[in-house]
This record gives sequence, structure tokens and C-alpha cells, in this order.
Amino acid sequence: MALRHYTLDFNLSAPADCPSTVRGLQSIFQEQEMTETVHDTEGHGYLATFIGKNGRLVILRVHSQGLVTVDLQCCEGDNIAQIDNLLNALEKKLKSLLHGNIRRVKRLPALTRGAAVDRYWPTADGRLVEYDIDRVVYDEDSAYQNIKILHSQQFGNILILNGDVNLAESDLPYTQAIMGRGKENYTGKEVLILGGGDGGILAEAVKLKPKMITMVEIDQMVIDGCRTHMRKACGSVLDNLKGDCYQVLVEDCVPVLKKYVEEGKTFDYVINDLTAVPISTAPEEDSTWEFLQLILDLSIKVLRPTGKYFTQGNCANLTEALALYEEQLGRLSCPVDFSKEVVCVPSYMELWVFYTVWKK
Amino acid sequence: MALRHYTLDFNLSAPADCPSTVRGLQSIFQEQEMTETVHDTEGHGYLATFIGKNGRLVILRVHSQGLVTVDLQCCEGDNIAQIDNLLNALEKKLKSLLHGNIRRVKRLPALTRGAAVDRYWPTADGRLVEYDIDRVVYDEDSAYQNIKILHSQQFGNILILNGDVNLAESDLPYTQAIMGRGKENYTGKEVLILGGGDGGILAEAVKLKPKMITMVEIDQMVIDGCRTHMRKACGSVLDNLKGDCYQVLVEDCVPVLKKYVEEGKTFDYVINDLTAVPISTAPEEDSTWEFLQLILDLSIKVLRPTGKYFTQGNCANLTEALALYEEQLGRLSCPVDFSKEVVCVPSYMELWVFYTVWKK
Repeated sequence: MALRHYTLDFNLSAPADCPSTVRGLQSIFQEQEMTETVHDTEGHGYLATFIGKNGRLVILRVHSQGLVTVDLQCCEGDNIAQIDNLLNALEKKLKSLLHGNIRRVKRLPALTRGAAVDRYWPTADGRLVEYDIDRVVYDEDSAYQNIKILHSQQFGNILILNGDVNLAESDLPYTQAIMGRGKENYTGKEVLILGGGDGGILAEAVKLKPKMITMVEIDQMVIDGCRTHMRKACGSVLDNLKGDCYQVLVEDCVPVLKKYVEEGKTFDYVINDLTAVPISTAPEEDSTWEFLQLILDLSIKVLRPTGKYFTQGNCANLTEALALYEEQLGRLSCPVDFSKEVVCVPSYMELWVFYTVWKK
Repeated sequence: MALRHYTLDFNLSAPADCPSTVRGLQSIFQEQEMTETVHDTEGHGYLATFIGKNGRLVILRVHSQGLVTVDLQCCEGDNIAQIDNLLNALEKKLKSLLHGNIRRVKRLPALTRGAAVDRYWPTADGRLVEYDIDRVVYDEDSAYQNIKILHSQQFGNILILNGDVNLAESDLPYTQAIMGRGKENYTGKEVLILGGGDGGILAEAVKLKPKMITMVEIDQMVIDGCRTHMRKACGSVLDNLKGDCYQVLVEDCVPVLKKYVEEGKTFDYVINDLTAVPISTAPEEDSTWEFLQLILDLSIKVLRPTGKYFTQGNCANLTEALALYEEQLGRLSCPVDFSKEVVCVPSYMELWVFYTVWKK
């Protein structure tokens, strides 16, 4: 079962006349045969709850400082036309009762709570956004993370790892950004991809006739899910873990990188598609920053002197986290320079920063 | 004043044991010195409201079919750390009380209701999205519409006409799409822009050395607001209503188009940047469709045989409205062909369809 939660808010120029507002609405609630309870708020405005049929709940608040809020909760299966009529009646009546005193009326799309298909995936900067997700395609826990693939009408299938939107089938701009935006020549080059289990980068990179691509992805289940359900991103490239010019190692990338450093193996391009920069801006509280530093350091070590390291950073709004990351770039054992670019990734609902790093 | 509204929802595998769940939470509400009211829902699960200090309100519902929902409303100025602690305590306790029976825990970013700066601008397909808007730059009613320009941290200033997001300073992809995506040669051409008061198209078009651009915008106040506050979109092009290769007519475009038809005046490009295709899919209920048809017909009449007509359509998800628009294209007095393209406009939070129309 799920709950639909409607809100209807009136911003006023001056405090509402509470008794007349409340009285004016009474006939509507009586018509609905709702049971009223008026609560004592100890001076914090008027608050009444109304219980109606089918478990319907209305909360009416007349705040002392020029705000009237109405909440309406009903079951998802409740009669939508009846609910709309009730809300329309309340809105119309309040507009007439508060006439001349209204600054703004806001009636938001209903929140759906507890639905089988979860449409709310907040942005990295903490905003509430609703996706046009209509079905769950894949939902499994691997040894490393929760893996969801959800279908969006406009974005195609979306890969969500531990609750973070990673990549949708619409998100070629992400893949292009993390590969250097078409400005690089991959022909005959050796490429290392860290993570990238959705296959998006691998699929684009093999088209560019590189000498060899090595992709190191820890989670076989991500590969399996995306091979089946993210084909607009990965094409057929994940059908085999080996191709003419690529190999996929299903391993933790840290020991692999350490081995490459030991062997003196180097690459023209290292593309870090592991998890995003942690949101935390307190490095001392979070060993993720140390992990990031380790990956960065090892990656630069396996980079040829003319090579480039590409990675995603974070959403453009998390300026503190981005600044911390850039500080880290200044603290590597090998001195580097970097450039960054802000890119619109369709399914992200926020602008995203990508970095290019090279040896000084 | 504004209200912060938090939600915390538990999806369960099986119905919760209601008495033990409710009892388990009691100490938390008692600690907060909240006054409890248990409501009779006539068999629709358990419902209790709790009123605390500062006008805090908690609603606890244990639905009969495996859903527990918690709402917490508090004033915007209330102590956020205290509120977070209360929610954390409720979440932790519920996790332990419902242990082994939990499918999903969802705690959304708080809704802010009644704030001076409104951050919620639903998409054309009716989804709830929160923008990173931090201030109102301009808010005026003209003779034609409400004009808002709001500042977003990531998108720059956003022009919102009658509640619809029109263009943000980040939205060059919109302007490029409605001009033919860089595939057209504007040099020496005659161009007609319908609407476009934000100046985005005009600013890009003058860079392309056309012979003459005529822009017909009805609303001087849109021009005035954008000239001052949307300069990343319009540059200095709106500083004067006349330039070397352009003129802006502050007029209703219908009589202007009719006059052009009468005079036999024609253009190489007609760019319709008027309001979006109406959301309504019932043409008989909405004369907006007739208006659209009129504009389309007149536009095609002033188009040279080799000319092109560009316009935005609608969000990609409103497939019925798009189909109706395409039907209209088949009913023009002059037969036309068209192509369409789906484009990601950064500030829209949804993919958008653009049309190119030409004479058969």
C-alpha cells in the first residue's frame, strides 16, 4: 500500500483572521463527514485534524504569522477525483476567505509515500526531486552494495548504487565528459578504467580503436545487471569479459594498481569511474578521503608522462567538497596540474564537475 | 514564516505489530513532552498526533498493510539539531522495533512550505522538483503575465513566466536547439523571432552575421527584467531595441504576422519562442490550440520556400500533447514536413522536444 500526500499552502500579507477562516471551511469538512479534533498548540496558531472515510486525514493549520497550510493524506487507491474535488473546494474557499490578503498559493504535486516503485532520489546537494520512474527492473544486494536498475520514461534505465544515481541510458554526456569530451585521440593508446561496471565508458572507448583497454571492476553483479538492462549504454561490450582490444578484470582495483606500479606498467589514459567524491567535507571523519588519495596516487604512478587522468568530481553546488578534492590534487607524491569542466548529465538533475589531471 | 515538513517512511514485508510499535515509541514522545491524541480511523490503521513545543507536530500512522509513516512539522526557525535528533531517535527506534520486517526506509529532504523564496517549480510532466534557488531577483506582474527572475546557484538566474521555467542563464542548449543546433547558416539571412523576450536567441543570432533579425515580443517588462538580470543569456543585445542587424518590435506578433503576409514579406528563418504547447490534450476545451494553429499558419506563410521554422514543442514525456501538435502540422494550409530532436536543457529537469518545420 502507498499513501498520497497533498499539500496546499497560502502565504499571506498579514496574519489571517483565524476564527472566520476556520468557520468558513467547516461546511466542507462536514459535507465530507470528517471528524474534527482541535489541538492546543500553546499559542502556536490554530491546528485541527480531520479524519474522514477510507482513512483520509486532513491537517489544517492557521499559523500566527501569515501562513495557512493544509495537508491531505489518503490511500493510493482512494478515489482521485473525490480527493481533487475536496482540494479544489478547500482552495476555492480559502481563496475567497483570504481574498486580498494572499501573496502566494502553492499546491504541489502529491508526494507518494511507501510505493513499490520509489520515484524520489535526492540530488547530491540534498534537494528533493521526483523521477519519472515507472518500474523496478533489477534490485539486488551484492557483496559490495545495493544495485538497482529502474526504468524512467525519458531517461531509459537508470543504474542506482547504494541510493546514488550513477548512470542512465540517456547519459552519454557523462561518458563523453569522463573521456575528455572528444578532444583526445585514443587510437593505438593503452587505457585503464577503474570501476565503470555499467560498461558505458568501455563501449565508447572500444569504438576509438585503442591498442588495449583494461577495465577493473570489483562487482560482477553490476556487470551482470548492466549487461542485461543498460544496453543503450554498454551495447554488447559486456557480453564477454575479453574482446579484441579490451579485457575486464573483476577485481579490487587497489591491488591491481599496486601490481602495475611494481611491474612498471603504464597507461596513456586512466579513467577513474569509481564512486563520487564523498559528500563529507570533514576528511578527518571519513577514511573515504584517504581511499581517494590512495587511488589518485597509484593512478598518477601508472600514468605515462604525457598521459591523462580523468575523473568525475561532484555536483557543482558542493563547492567545499570540490575545493577539498583540489587540495588533495596538490598533495600527491608527483606534482600535477588539472582542469575542470561543468557538465549537464541528463538524469542527474544537477550540474556535475569533471576533472582532467596530468603530470607537471 | 515558513514550515519545515519532514517525512520518514517504513515499508514493511508484513503488517507491523501495532501495539508494540506504538508503545516502543512512547518514551521518545514523552521525553519531548509532546501531547498525544489517538484518533479513531474506523479501521484504517493507527493514527496519533503529537503536539510539542514551538508548535512542533508529529503524525504517526501505522497502516494496516505494512507501512509506517511519520510526519514532523516545525517552524523554519526551530532548532534544526533538535529536530534532527528527534528524527534520528524515531528512525533508530523504529528500525529496532521493526527489525527483520523492513523493506525500505525513506527519509526525504524536508519540504519547506511558505518560504519567502519558493524553490519548488514542478516539471511540465507534473513531477515535484526542488531547485537550488536562493533569492528572488525580480518579481513583477505585467499586463500579460507574472514575471519572476530567481537566482539558482548552479543555473544562474532563471526566468519564470506564470510559474513556468522559461530559460536560465545556463540554458544555451535551449537556444542552440531552437536555432537549428549550429547546422544552419545564418549569414546574410533574414530572421523573424516570435517572442524571445529574454534575448537569448537574439544574442546568439546577431553573432552569426545575418542580414536582418526582427524580433516581436509583446511584453516590454520581460525585456526590461532580462536586460538587467539575464545578461549571461542576452548579453548587451537588449540594451537597445535596434542594432546594426536587428530590430525589436514590442508588439503582439499576430497583427505583425498578418501585415507581413499582406505585404508579401518573407523570411529565411522563423523562430517561434512563444509559450510552450499547452499541456491540455483536449483541443476542444482549449482555444490555445487554435492560437497555436494560427501562429503556425501565419509563420509558414511568411517563410520562404527554402526557409525553416523552428519551435520548441513540449517535454518528452507528454507524448499525447506532442502527437496532437504533430497532427496540427498535418493540417496547415500549406503542406509541411518536420523533424524533431530531444534535448537536455539544464534548468528544465526533463528532456524537451524541439521541432524543425519546412515547406514540402
